[in-house]
Amino acid sequence: MHMASKDPALSAADLRALCRSGAFDGPTAGYADGHVQANLMIVPREYAFDFLLFCQRNPKPCPLVEVLEPGCFEPRSAPGADLRTDVPGYRIFENGVLRQEIADISAYWRDDLVSFLIGCSFSFESALIEGGIPLRHIEQQRNVAMYKTSMPCEPAGRFTGNAVVSMRPVKSRDIARAVEITARLPQVHGAPVHIGNPQAIGIVDLMRPDFGDAVEIMEDELPVFWACGVTPQYVAELSKLPFCITHAPGKMFVTDRLNE
Amino acid sequence: MHMASKDPALSAADLRALCRSGAFDGPTAGYADGHVQANLMIVPREYAFDFLLFCQRNPKPCPLVEVLEPGCFEPRSAPGADLRTDVPGYRIFENGVLRQEIADISAYWRDDLVSFLIGCSFSFESALIEGGIPLRHIEQQRNVAMYKTSMPCEPAGRFTGNAVVSMRPVKSRDIARAVEITARLPQVHGAPVHIGNPQAIGIVDLMRPDFGDAVEIMEDELPVFWACGVTPQYVAELSKLPFCITHAPGKMFVTDRLNE
Repeated sequence: MHMASKDPALSAADLRALCRSGAFDGPTAGYADGHVQANLMIVPREYAFDFLLFCQRNPKPCPLVEVLEPGCFEPRSAPGADLRTDVPGYRIFENGVLRQEIADISAYWRDDLVSFLIGCSFSFESALIEGGIPLRHIEQQRNVAMYKTSMPCEPAGRFTGNAVVSMRPVKSRDIARAVEITARLPQVHGAPVHIGNPQAIGIVDLMRPDFGDAVEIMEDELPVFWACGVTPQYVAELSKLPFCITHAPGKMFVTDRLNE
Repeated sequence: MHMASKDPALSAADLRALCRSGAFDGPTAGYADGHVQANLMIVPREYAFDFLLFCQRNPKPCPLVEVLEPGCFEPRSAPGADLRTDVPGYRIFENGVLRQEIADISAYWRDDLVSFLIGCSFSFESALIEGGIPLRHIEQQRNVAMYKTSMPCEPAGRFTGNAVVSMRPVKSRDIARAVEITARLPQVHGAPVHIGNPQAIGIVDLMRPDFGDAVEIMEDELPVFWACGVTPQYVAELSKLPFCITHAPGKMFVTDRLNE
């Protein structure tokens, strides 16, 4: 089983406890509604300054929710939680190569590991839907479509690479409002980085995303692109970081913090 | 001589060249009007992650303008500049103790030094004056009054300590507008952290500031307190950092970037 029922009474702490016991290992979208969910990136202290600098220079793809002290695995945004066990799935990378996908990283933990929690688009998606802007991938219960682009991030130390974006089709009449709504949420990627014209940012075929699932674009819609929290993982891969751990795609860390 | 004339035609690059040649060693307030001026903090790479984390956790006192790669002294915000010579004055600290105040740090430069440029209140002061809110310390050509407080910063690694605030007397009828104007400028400390009642934040006597010059508070005014860029220097002192270099008070690094 990988899906508990989306019981609205399930708190963030309940969900984390289910992850810890192994009873939940699915995507977290739609769970513990209203709580900030976060991308996870864990790097050795040796690379932590460069990575923190990368986030500071690229706040749209890498909006920081929290950075923990080296060796620490209990975030302030979720007292009592344990980042080694409370995420539904993790990926272990060595020299930029995915080695393993597992549900518990306790065996890999080291005192020099620094954990970064990075804002994710689930928060701004609720804001868009509440603002009357439907999101096709949610209606169709798919993962959002994500693309590698030709837009370089600001490099920092050994971290260099292009940004990854997520795409949502938006009706022409709704685009300005979608910009306004998400511009108010810089802690979760902020305003779109590009609207229409995928070729201009190096995307050849919208129907073949690099991550996630494709969705159809209707005649009265344009593709709208937002900076994506997959960027830091992708850049860490490109930069052939000797060792890092991330969450598995769609399987976020759920904090106790509220979106509002 | 320590004051060139405040020639409005003097560009930021001109002013930096005068610093470099030794022809200018005074406070930078009022020079190269409209340009972002920055507090400077230089720490060895060993402490750079902790310090960057401190800034990230305390954005009001430590709004980052730019962080340079280790060993690098030419900022992106001022191409061609040299952070080792282009500030009117520097302070060298060892184990939290001020050892020397000098005009050129080339002899102290090391490949592992990381430079942080941190926003300073000169930018929001122009915005307040343009908004019709007079500032007494500027009218009286004094340094702004700064105070150590009892408000703890969020600690990060070895950096722990209370915040330093700057104080400007504002007429009761203007306070709301002063909040609105500065809230729009998070890159230079943002909205006030406290209004009125200095005792509540551990300030015993407003007429005896810890840094800068005292100014009188009139009957129709309240003291308004903003987070201050002296905080990181003060915290580095308290934390007995083995080695760091800062700008000398009031003698900022002037970037090519415009406030607006």
